[in-house]
Formats: sequence, structure tokens, C-alpha cells
Amino acid sequence: MPETLIKVDLSQSAYDNDMVHNRWHPDIPMVATVKPGSDFIVETYDWTGGFIKNNDSADDVRDIDLSIVHFLSGPIGVEGAEPGDLLVVDLLDIGAKPDSQWGFNGFFSKKNGGGFLTEHFPQAQKSIWDFEGLYTKSRHVPGVRFPGLIHPGLIGCLPDPKMLATWNAREQGLYDTDPGRVPALATLPFGPTAHMGRLSGDAKAKAASEGARTVPPREHGGNCDIKDLSRGSKIYFPVYVPGAGLSMGDLHFSQGDGEITFCGAIEMAGWVHLKVDLIKDGMAKYGIKNPIFKPSPITPQYDDYLIFEGISVDEQGGQHYLDVHVAYRQACLNAIEYLKKFGYSGAQAYSILGTAPVQGHISGVVDIPNACATLWIPTKIFEFDINPSAAGPTKFLDGSIQMPLSPDL
Amino acid sequence: MPETLIKVDLSQSAYDNDMVHNRWHPDIPMVATVKPGSDFIVETYDWTGGFIKNNDSADDVRDIDLSIVHFLSGPIGVEGAEPGDLLVVDLLDIGAKPDSQWGFNGFFSKKNGGGFLTEHFPQAQKSIWDFEGLYTKSRHVPGVRFPGLIHPGLIGCLPDPKMLATWNAREQGLYDTDPGRVPALATLPFGPTAHMGRLSGDAKAKAASEGARTVPPREHGGNCDIKDLSRGSKIYFPVYVPGAGLSMGDLHFSQGDGEITFCGAIEMAGWVHLKVDLIKDGMAKYGIKNPIFKPSPITPQYDDYLIFEGISVDEQGGQHYLDVHVAYRQACLNAIEYLKKFGYSGAQAYSILGTAPVQGHISGVVDIPNACATLWIPTKIFEFDINPSAAGPTKFLDGSIQMPLSPDL
Amino acid sequence: MPETLIKVDLSQSAYDNDMVHNRWHPDIPMVATVKPGSDFIVETYDWTGGFIKNNDSADDVRDIDLSIVHFLSGPIGVEGAEPGDLLVVDLLDIGAKPDSQWGFNGFFSKKNGGGFLTEHFPQAQKSIWDFEGLYTKSRHVPGVRFPGLIHPGLIGCLPDPKMLATWNAREQGLYDTDPGRVPALATLPFGPTAHMGRLSGDAKAKAASEGARTVPPREHGGNCDIKDLSRGSKIYFPVYVPGAGLSMGDLHFSQGDGEITFCGAIEMAGWVHLKVDLIKDGMAKYGIKNPIFKPSPITPQYDDYLIFEGISVDEQGGQHYLDVHVAYRQACLNAIEYLKKFGYSGAQAYSILGTAPVQGHISGVVDIPNACATLWIPTKIFEFDINPSAAGPTKFLDGSIQMPLSPDL
Amino acid sequence: MPETLIKVDLSQSAYDNDMVHNRWHPDIPMVATVKPGSDFIVETYDWTGGFIKNNDSADDVRDIDLSIVHFLSGPIGVEGAEPGDLLVVDLLDIGAKPDSQWGFNGFFSKKNGGGFLTEHFPQAQKSIWDFEGLYTKSRHVPGVRFPGLIHPGLIGCLPDPKMLATWNAREQGLYDTDPGRVPALATLPFGPTAHMGRLSGDAKAKAASEGARTVPPREHGGNCDIKDLSRGSKIYFPVYVPGAGLSMGDLHFSQGDGEITFCGAIEMAGWVHLKVDLIKDGMAKYGIKNPIFKPSPITPQYDDYLIFEGISVDEQGGQHYLDVHVAYRQACLNAIEYLKKFGYSGAQAYSILGTAPVQGHISGVVDIPNACATLWIPTKIFEFDINPSAAGPTKFLDGSIQMPLSPDL
Repeated sequence: MPETLIKVDLSQSAYDNDMVHNRWHPDIPMVATVKPGSDFIVETYDWTGGFIKNNDSADDVRDIDLSIVHFLSGPIGVEGAEPGDLLVVDLLDIGAKPDSQWGFNGFFSKKNGGGFLTEHFPQAQKSIWDFEGLYTKSRHVPGVRFPGLIHPGLIGCLPDPKMLATWNAREQGLYDTDPGRVPALATLPFGPTAHMGRLSGDAKAKAASEGARTVPPREHGGNCDIKDLSRGSKIYFPVYVPGAGLSMGDLHFSQGDGEITFCGAIEMAGWVHLKVDLIKDGMAKYGIKNPIFKPSPITPQYDDYLIFEGISVDEQGGQHYLDVHVAYRQACLNAIEYLKKFGYSGAQAYSILGTAPVQGHISGVVDIPNACATLWIPTKIFEFDINPSAAGPTKFLDGSIQMPLSPDL
Repeated sequence: MPETLIKVDLSQSAYDNDMVHNRWHPDIPMVATVKPGSDFIVETYDWTGGFIKNNDSADDVRDIDLSIVHFLSGPIGVEGAEPGDLLVVDLLDIGAKPDSQWGFNGFFSKKNGGGFLTEHFPQAQKSIWDFEGLYTKSRHVPGVRFPGLIHPGLIGCLPDPKMLATWNAREQGLYDTDPGRVPALATLPFGPTAHMGRLSGDAKAKAASEGARTVPPREHGGNCDIKDLSRGSKIYFPVYVPGAGLSMGDLHFSQGDGEITFCGAIEMAGWVHLKVDLIKDGMAKYGIKNPIFKPSPITPQYDDYLIFEGISVDEQGGQHYLDVHVAYRQACLNAIEYLKKFGYSGAQAYSILGTAPVQGHISGVVDIPNACATLWIPTKIFEFDINPSAAGPTKFLDGSIQMPLSPDL
Repeated sequence: MPETLIKVDLSQSAYDNDMVHNRWHPDIPMVATVKPGSDFIVETYDWTGGFIKNNDSADDVRDIDLSIVHFLSGPIGVEGAEPGDLLVVDLLDIGAKPDSQWGFNGFFSKKNGGGFLTEHFPQAQKSIWDFEGLYTKSRHVPGVRFPGLIHPGLIGCLPDPKMLATWNAREQGLYDTDPGRVPALATLPFGPTAHMGRLSGDAKAKAASEGARTVPPREHGGNCDIKDLSRGSKIYFPVYVPGAGLSMGDLHFSQGDGEITFCGAIEMAGWVHLKVDLIKDGMAKYGIKNPIFKPSPITPQYDDYLIFEGISVDEQGGQHYLDVHVAYRQACLNAIEYLKKFGYSGAQAYSILGTAPVQGHISGVVDIPNACATLWIPTKIFEFDINPSAAGPTKFLDGSIQMPLSPDL
Repeated sequence: MPETLIKVDLSQSAYDNDMVHNRWHPDIPMVATVKPGSDFIVETYDWTGGFIKNNDSADDVRDIDLSIVHFLSGPIGVEGAEPGDLLVVDLLDIGAKPDSQWGFNGFFSKKNGGGFLTEHFPQAQKSIWDFEGLYTKSRHVPGVRFPGLIHPGLIGCLPDPKMLATWNAREQGLYDTDPGRVPALATLPFGPTAHMGRLSGDAKAKAASEGARTVPPREHGGNCDIKDLSRGSKIYFPVYVPGAGLSMGDLHFSQGDGEITFCGAIEMAGWVHLKVDLIKDGMAKYGIKNPIFKPSPITPQYDDYLIFEGISVDEQGGQHYLDVHVAYRQACLNAIEYLKKFGYSGAQAYSILGTAPVQGHISGVVDIPNACATLWIPTKIFEFDINPSAAGPTKFLDGSIQMPLSPDL
């Protein structure tokens, strides 16, 4: 077996593991160094460091302090990596920790993070998904079962000081346009809950006060939450600092395009088996600003989908100009209404869209003023037939099973 | 062979064909009536009614009066269809007219329509794509060849008066926020170039002045430009008027997600073989607002993609809040920069994204403040290897072939 | 549109069309010559030249004189082709004749041709399949509908005299081991029903008496009946005579692996749009004896199959040594028994295996003494659920529809 | 994690593990009992019980006593299972033992087992394949790398006495037709090397002398070596004895259709996570004689193949009657000749066909006298382009790396 470079002990606080960090900063010390061409294993906490539990209450989803996320394993140095190179990462395999064969999905309260449909689902809710080998199902969302499209929600290299400054400046600028907004427009540096890996003392304090939050995806990749970056795929990351400094975490057993439930996909603790290599000066050679990647040859295959359309007219009939965000929200709401006809609660339908390998396509984006987005639901994830028929829908679910909900206090 | 309900003669002006119309209005008379369960063929003009020619000049793209589009064949009445039903449409097959085995793609001038990347490609350009059976290639964009994912860009049923009024009101409202904008924020009713099918006299004049433009997709479907609504697929359309009134046009031999080039996909004149059926009261039974559909079992298959990421930070570094439109634009621009390294001009790369069956995914839409979109390019459409390698890219094209460009006058 | 090199008139006897032939012989004159790189269209009769009719009687299947088959269009000469070259053929598209949107499938009587399961289905039976755009269904086999995997059952180049002699000698040798066998072990040259294209007089008589029958696949390809050689695929054929001499026919709208029903797949008259090119001296360069090919990017896609196993123990319990033929027969018989539980007659089930895109895999061929073959039935071709369940099968069919059968006279 | 019902210690002889057996016999005691609906893990030896080593000599392949195989884990009893039921087995996941991340492939000497191409490769040869997460590659076969299609080569339930007697009688009958043949026509009961699990004393001696060898696939499934019975698939097994008695082993990391190299696929020690359930009286309900199954949604996907044809004319030009075995052998030999043009030795090419997920189709089986078989090689498994071109093949390999060969002593 390849070496496990970074281990995590799920019974230990992530803050006590010095090979973990939860901010992006060039000063965070490498915790290990590997040679190009080598493969190794990295263990990770779930993105909350174990805060969300395998139980039937959404209190933890309601109460979590979101400034603690995401707990990342790394940074790992790669010998010879220099700014301007491309770091080639093969995700050779990914899995859940053997002693933690489950994951969670949920919606944050609108007062604490919110989500894509927070106006429709403003309270904290949670579902637990059990893994059964390659498959998952939930005791809170009956009637669906599907194989995992396992991937890291978050992976990327350390920024250099200039890039870090750019990130912080532009996000602060946006934040400042509406500082009181709930949920906030952006997550800004926040020292008190920062975990800066092996930094300590003044160096830590300084870096913690500057470190970019891990929430948004950025030029380096980071928290892209791209479901297709799954085990078996190959990624080309921009390198900004000597040694590259690769970190990762936020593993997902499965996720729909958009990660619309925000808390989040099917979130899990686990391990990544990866291999690294370099393309020297690759950023200039290929004109690379953001990562590029090639998908895995091993992903769950579906030939049949039910596809929902949405346009950029909002729930109140308001007309938006080529707004794909609004269009996708309409497609999602349309799908939820449809699934409710089969007996699902709205929350359960929303959870399915957040967890199952649904596709979200930007179908049309020039036909003024309406963008058109499509949401693709694989029909085979259901244990019953969800196709339309002349007879109309059958209620396969009787509503006796519901998702835990914890009202705001 | 099934009956051809509507014929078009490409040597005749579309305005002279009374089974064609270019506005949406409930008063447009049905041109034929069919029974549920029947199949038939409908011929269509290309969306411009033949204005764009198979030649090596982009003058027609620059000079077109866009108020004439789209020329639709229909409306077709379905016996027994009533408001609230779902009209089930099987796209049994679609093809180009035998005497018109080619299509066009292009970018409008920013002064006349623009497009997704109009700031980067502000001048009119055009490429011609020849069909070779199932495949297409272009004399203006060397090095790519791919099978068609043939589909109607535009298909849907007539609105009722209330829905028509809603459309016009909300689009007028948006338009009025910036009436002088170029390109305009919306296309408003415009009588002079309206073709109202078999309406004539005052009835025509009245309807022409009210008829909704065909440009945007709306609740009824319409100009969705969804590449996956391809031959072999099955669509469930909302019905608003007695008889349904199904019209279609804007056939595409192929298109990438987003139809980013706007003028347009690979646009062609052709025919649709379709079958219609009804789900009575289907809108309420299934909670349907917009059409839903099931994809075709026969589509070009790819197992290998090169995938580009984009985030909602614009070309000037401006930070946008979860804006998928901006994120997808960045993904597209990233792909264009990449393809240029192999010898393509920016315009040629842009054309490939507009014509080939590239996928555009809404990958992450909750990680404030950045949306993440991905653009998937199937590697097999290229006649050479476009994958990254340690050696760097090879210039397979020498730049001797370029796309026609017609500067603004 | 490309030129139609060879036309066929379905109201005319194939014997009266001098661009058609039904034997393989190097002396058959080319009927047209094309340049490498050119594309063109070839029309073909169905393999029987129109003998089998679209009706509800199997008399024609029972009574056909099988020495007349297959009616091939060609041979077509390719400029510059020489023995030893590879002729590269792109099957750009294939379709049924517009005025002949149907095909037939059937089983020959054991006394007149037989078939793979002739011991179980010894009498002539027939089913007619109607085409509906990309799809087909049969009034004689209810409950299935599927898109076509359209392909030529037979395509290849003329043999040279030496190869012809080899064919005839080895097949005569086999025939002579049991000359009275019914069905025969091989089809030998037979002058009286030979159609030698543009040959006439003594030259025709000589060639007719020597011409290899078109029934078996051979080194040149020929009657391979490979369902995957479908429209969109690319084939590399060995060239034996100057000009290559490409002929084709026996078009199939769809077929299962093995073409087990023998009469045949879904047989149709139609057209092929193809393009030819050359790899000079390609046979030696690539060590080619039989054709090789690359499959089409456009084929019906299925993600779900029900798979039946068979081993090389025959119906009477007899043990055969690694005999894949016997193993596949068992897999087919197992599938037929299964389908009968849902209400199909054995004949209908057999027809489904012969017509639908079922796969037949040589799964294990070394585990003495049993070969293992698998038969893959795509579940989506059925209009009902054929998966096993705890509740047991439901009879979806009531037996009121049966396939025509014509007893031996 | 689910319970591991059966553990194997690779440092211990398989004969010392009483939860393992290497013959089929109804008297072998169940080693564990599970309830329908439960899931659990079973570890297995490789099929030789560890005889073949991870080294660079083929001596072990040459010298192995093949009467010792296959070492199976089980039998496992299922509560409530009765003869006539179907045992539904979900292969939830399968993997290699963590401390044994490699597998072997090889050809037996013609004098000791042989193989599909033993006349062409009569000497013992071996290749070792290292696993890298989802992928494998070999230090003995350069230029190929592919993800595993992991499956058990052998799985099935215990026979009852009557079935056992049938097996032994029919195989003895075949054997007796040529008792001196090398390799033998069949493997007969052989007590000295039998491992009968927990049987001991006279009961063991009796059962050992009667126990059916594990080599051939039979009515119960058994050694089917079906590559598509991969992790994620669902199998329906006939039940013959109370409790079913499910055993399994012979895990493969990957295999081509036919397992033509015989020793074998990529053979490994590992574990299976499985779930069992029952369909009461399922054999009669569904007319089941051999197992049926549904494939996994998670398998390596390929869209591009190079396909080789073979017909039932043997290497000496001998004509066989619809013999798929001969036809597939020709397709394999054709592929080997082709691959040699790129620099592979024949043995390396043969190994690729035995290990990679190549497909073997029974393409035509009625066109007397020639069967037609096709061999499908996925082009993406190669690190270079193996497609034909006008320029001819490039020798990507220089022959410096060869497979170990151990001549007969």
C-alpha cells in the first residue's frame, strides 16, 4: 500500500491535528514533501471537522459556527514545483473512512448560511445517508438509492501573497456593498477560528488575520464542489508558490450539480489516494488561469433522465436578464413540485437534488432576456417509476417518513 | 411515409408561406389538425428564412434585420387538446432538407444583436458547416468534425391571451429599465416585420402589434435552444389554448450548451418527423409550469472531455455574487485561450464552443460569493490530440484558414 | 446532396438491374468508379430482392428459393486501389427507402434454411416491423419498441481468383462431409439463379458457375451481419483486385448479436451514404487478414440489461467441449423461457432476440469443458418492467397477438 | 462497517483455513449463516491460494498443480433459503487485500493446462500487474493502463446430490472420449488435493472423492469468469440445497471477454462486500436454469474501440461449421498480429487481450458455414494511438521489456 502522508483521528478535534488547516495563506508550512511521480494517501475530516453527527436531529446543522470550515489536509509540498507550473493530480481512488460509513446532507437556516433555496426552505434540516459499498441510501429520504460519484469538494494549491491580497480585496469590496446582509455576500478573514496548521505564535496570528476563507472556489480551484472531479479523474492545477502546497478536504460521497443544499453534498470523512506530477511552465504553455481536468472513466452511468427546464423569470414573475442562477432555481423548483406529486415532502425532494448525481446544464444563455437552464434527474435512482403517464402520478410514499427539522431558536 | 403537413420551399420567401409565422399570438389560425397518436412531418425554414447564405462573407450576418426571426412552421392543432393538458411530442426524427446539406454559425455585431462574448468578438463573423451524412465539418474552422446532435432550437404551443399579456408586460418592464441599451435588454412586439400566418387584415394588424417576439424561451418552451431536445427525445408541453397550437423551427444540426455564439448553433432548414399525444389535465397532475422532457437514446457518445472551470469573477477582476452567467463566460474564455495554443484564432475557438456538443454545467452555486461553472469539450471532435502534456502544445494549424469577418459599416 | 451512384427500383426485379449482383467473382465488371476521398450514395434492395412482403402470412418465408440471395449493389471501383491496400469506408449514413418504411424478420423452415434454433422453431414464421422515424415496432410482437442500429449486413470487396478458389474449395470440402444434410453445411456455387451484374454470355455463364455464394462472411468481410458496423462507423477492408470492387446490401434496421433468426435481422431496402479512401499497402503495414473497424459514435445507448448465461451443455444434457455455439444457444433458450413468463410466445421471444440490439458475449472460453456465453437484453426496449421481483412476473400480454406461421407443405 | 464473515490470512495455507473449500459438494458444512437482507464481507485467496508470486519468473505458472484450484470462501447459509428459490446477491463492492495490491496473469504450458491460444503460446509465461487505486499497469507489458472492472470469477451455490451426479457423469463421459488428451477434456473429481472445508474423517474422504471440480461454469453459475459480473451488479442464483450455500473466490481486478489467457484474468486475493436476499420459488416463477444478472452502473466507460473480425476458418485454412470458438480465436490472432506492428511481442499482445476489458461478441452465427466473432479493444487503454492511419504504424515499444517465460522442463 502507498504511504499515508496525513492521518486524521475522527475522535480528535481537527484543531489538534497540525497537518490540517482551515484558511488559505502562503505562510502555512508544508506538512510533507513528495517527489513528482509518487502516489500517496491523505486522510481528511469531513468539512465541519465532525460537528455534524449521525443522528435524527438538525440541531447541529442549525447551531454550527460556519467560520470553522473547511478543515483541509495539507499543504503537501512537491519537489521542484515552481510558480507557473501545472501540478498534475491523479485522483487514483477516494473512499470513506472504514469506521465512518455514512454522510450528511442538510439545509442551513437562512440566519446561518442559507442555501440556494433558502427562501423556500428557511429552517435547518438534515438527512443522514448510509453507505452500502458503492451505494448510498437515507433513512430520511425513502425511495432512492444510488452509487456514489465520490469526489473532493475542495482541492487546490496555496496562493502566493499577491493572489491572496487580490482575493481578500475583491471579496471585501463585494461584502461592503451590503455589510448587513443575511446571509452575508462573502466570507471575510476571521482570525478567532482560524486553524493555520503548523504556524504558531505571532506568525500564526498574522496569517490567521489575513488568511482567505475556504468557502468560495477561486483561481486555484479550491472549493469548486464539482461533482465530476471524481475518483479516477486527472486535474491540472496552477502553482503559485514553490512546492505548490496541495491541500484537500470536504469529501463528498455524491452531489448534484450546484450543490444546491449547501450543507452540502453527502459530506463525509475519508481518504484520497492520489499521484502528483508536474508540467513545467504549464500555465503559460497552455494559457491556464483556472484548473482544467479530465473526467474519470469510472462514474455511475445513466441513459435515462427526466429533464426540467427553468427560465430567468423568478418566483414572483420578475424578469431577469440572462440570469442563469435564477433559471436554474426555477428548474430546481419545478423538479421539486413534480417529485412532491409522488409523495415526497419538498425538503426530501430538495435533498435528492442536492445529493444525487443530477446534472445542471446552462442550456441557453443568449436568447434575451431569458436564460434557460435544465436540471437532469436520472430516473434509475428511484425505486419506483417517476415518468409521466396518462394515468397520472402514484403516491409511492405515504409521508410517514420525514426529514429532521430544527426551527430557529 | 407519413404525411408532410407543412412544406416549405427554400426558393420562396417565408413571408409568402401562410403556414409559417414569426410571432406568438393566440389568434394565429391553426394550419392543420391532427389526432392524438398520429405522426407526421413538418418542414421548416432556417430561423432567418434563408437570409444567411452559404458563402464566404459575413455581410449577411452583419446586415440582417433581426426583427424578422424566427420563422416557425405551424401552428398545428391537436384534436381534443384543452388548456391544462400536456401535449406529448415524440421527436421521431429530424434532418436537413435534402437540397440544403449545410448550416451556418456566426457572431452578430455588437451593434446588431451581439452575443455571449460580444465584448471580445464585437464584429460580425460567420462559418459555414457542411453536412456529410451524420457528420459535419467547416471550411472555415479546420481540424474538427463531429456527428450532429440534431434538434429544434424552438418548439412550443401557442400562449393564451393572459400568458401573452404577462410575457409582454414583464419584458417591457425590463426593457424600460434601460431603453437605449445596445444590444437591447429585450425584444418587444414589432408589427412591421410580423408574419402572422393566415391572419389578415385588421385581425392581423392587431395581432402583429401584440405578438410576442420569438427570441426568449418562456413557460411554453419556445426558443429554449436546448441541445438535448434532440431527435429521439420525448417532450411534455403545457397546453394553453384549445387545440394546443404546436409550432416549431430554428433547427440545429448541432449546438454547444448555451448557444453562446447566438447566430446561432449550426442553423439549418429541414424537417421534423413527430408524433403527438395528450395527457389530459397533465399540468395539474404533475405540477408542470415549464416543459419537461426525456432525452434521446440516440445521441453522439463521448467518454473523454477536457473540462474548463470558470468562477464569477469577471475579466476585469470584478467580483460577482453567485453569478453563473459570469462564471460560464470565464470558463468559455479559458477554453478559447487554451485552444488558441493549438493554432486556432479566437473566433474559431469561439465557433467550436458554439457548434460542437460541448456541455456547460452549473457546477457550484452556493459557495459565496463565487459560482463555479464548467465547460466540457469532447476531445474526440478534434482531428489531433488536444490533451495537455509535459511537452506543451503543438500548433496543428498554421493560421492560413480564417473565418470571414465583416466590419461594422 | 452527393451523387446516387446506384439506384434500385423496388417495383423492378433485381435481376433486371445490372448494377446488382448476387455472387462474388473477380470478373464482375465495376458499375462505377470513384476517387479516393469522395462520398456518394448507393441504393440497395433488401437481401431477397423484394420476395418477402409486408403482409400477415409467412408463406413467402416458407417458399423462398434461397439460392437467389443476396442482391448486392456494386461493385464500385476506387481509383488507385491495388491488391494489398486497405479500403477505408466511412458509413456516413444509412436509411430505409422513403417509400418502404418497414422491414421483416422471420425463421425459415428447417427444410429450407433453418436457423439457430431450428430444432425448437422448425416452421416458417414472420414478423413485420414498421419504422417510425428512428424507432421500430411490430404489429406481430407487441410490447417492444426501440431505435434502429442501422447497418449493412453485407459489405466487402471482390475476391481475386486465388481467394475465390480457396473459398470454394474449403466450403466444398465441408459440404462433402455430409452432402445430404438439411439444412446444408454450406452453400455452393449455383449458376441457374446467379446474377452476375453486367457480365453476359459465356463470360457470365462461366463466372456464374464459379461465383462464391454470398451467404458466409469471409476474409473480405462480406456477410458478417455485425450489428455494430452501423451508420457512423469506419471500416478498413482488404483489397484483392485492382479498383477494390466494393459491393453492399442486406441492410438491417436493427439486429441482435448472432442474427439468430436468420431470416434475418429487420431486413429492409434502403440506401447507404458512404465515403471511401485508401491506405496504400495497408494489409502488410497492419498485418490485416480480415476487416477491422471502429464503431459509430451514434448508437442507441442502454445502461440497463438483463443478462442470461448459457454453458456448453446442450438441451439433452450432452456435454460439449468449450463450444460457444452451444453455450450461446442455451443463453438464448434461457432468455426465451424467461420472456414467456411475461406472456410472449416462444416465437415472439425468439424474434425479439433476433431483432433488438441484444448483445452476445463470449464470456468464458477456457474453463474446461464448458464455454460460457451471455446474452444481454436491454430492459428499456420493453414497454413494461421485465426485471425479476419477489412478486413474480406479471403477464403483460394476453396472447391475442401471434406471429404468422406457415406450416411446411 | 459490516461484519467480515470469512477472513483469510495470505501468510497461511488455504488448506489450513476451514472456511475455504476447493470442490463443490452438498455435504460441505456452512461456515456461517446470515439473514435475507443482510450485508457482510467475505475475504478470499487468489484462485491458487497464493501459489503464484509477485516476481519475474514464470516457474510458478509452469509448475503449479492445477488440481488444487479454486480456493473458495464459504459456503454461507442463508436463513429460509430452499431449493427452487432464487438467491439475490448484490455485489456491493469488491477490492484487493490492502496488503496485496497486485495481481497476476499468465499462460500455462500446453503440458499443464494450456489455454485458448496454447498452440501459439505453448510455454509458461507470466505478467505482474500493479494496482494504483482504481487503475492497473504492468512492468511486463508496457504502454497500457486501465481502470479495473473488478469481479469474482467464481461465485455460486452448492449443488444438491442429483445435480452433482449429473455434472460428474456428463464430464466423465466427455473425458472418456479421449482420456489421454493433453490438455485434458475435463477435470474429474480428485480426492488427494481436495479441501472440503469443515468436513473431516470419512465424510471428508467420501465427499472429496465425489466433489465436482471448480473449473467449469455450470447450472449454478460457478466459474463463469464473466467480466461483467462486476462490483455493483446484482445476480439471481438458483438454490439447490436448504440454506443455499453461497461460495465465491477467484477475484479478478480485470479481464477480457473469454479470459483467454486462462492463468487467468488479473488474479488477486481480496474481499467482497455483498448483500443477500431471496425470491421464494423464483426458479419456477421465472423459468430459471442458469443464473441471470443485471450489470453494474459503475464500470469503466469507453466510446472508442478498434474491432477485429474472425471467422470459423482455422489457422490452417480448415473450414468449421458455425464454430464461434474458432471464429473468436481468429479475431484474437488478428488483433495480436496488429498489436505486434506497434512493437508488442505476441505474448504481450495476448496478455492485453486476457486482462483488459476487451469485449468478445458473437456477431453472426447463422451464415453457413462461417460464424463471425468480433473482438473489441478499447483504444484508450493505450498510452499511444493505435488507430490505423495512412502513414502506417509507429513502433512505440522497442522490445527491451519482455514477459518472463519458463520453458518446459
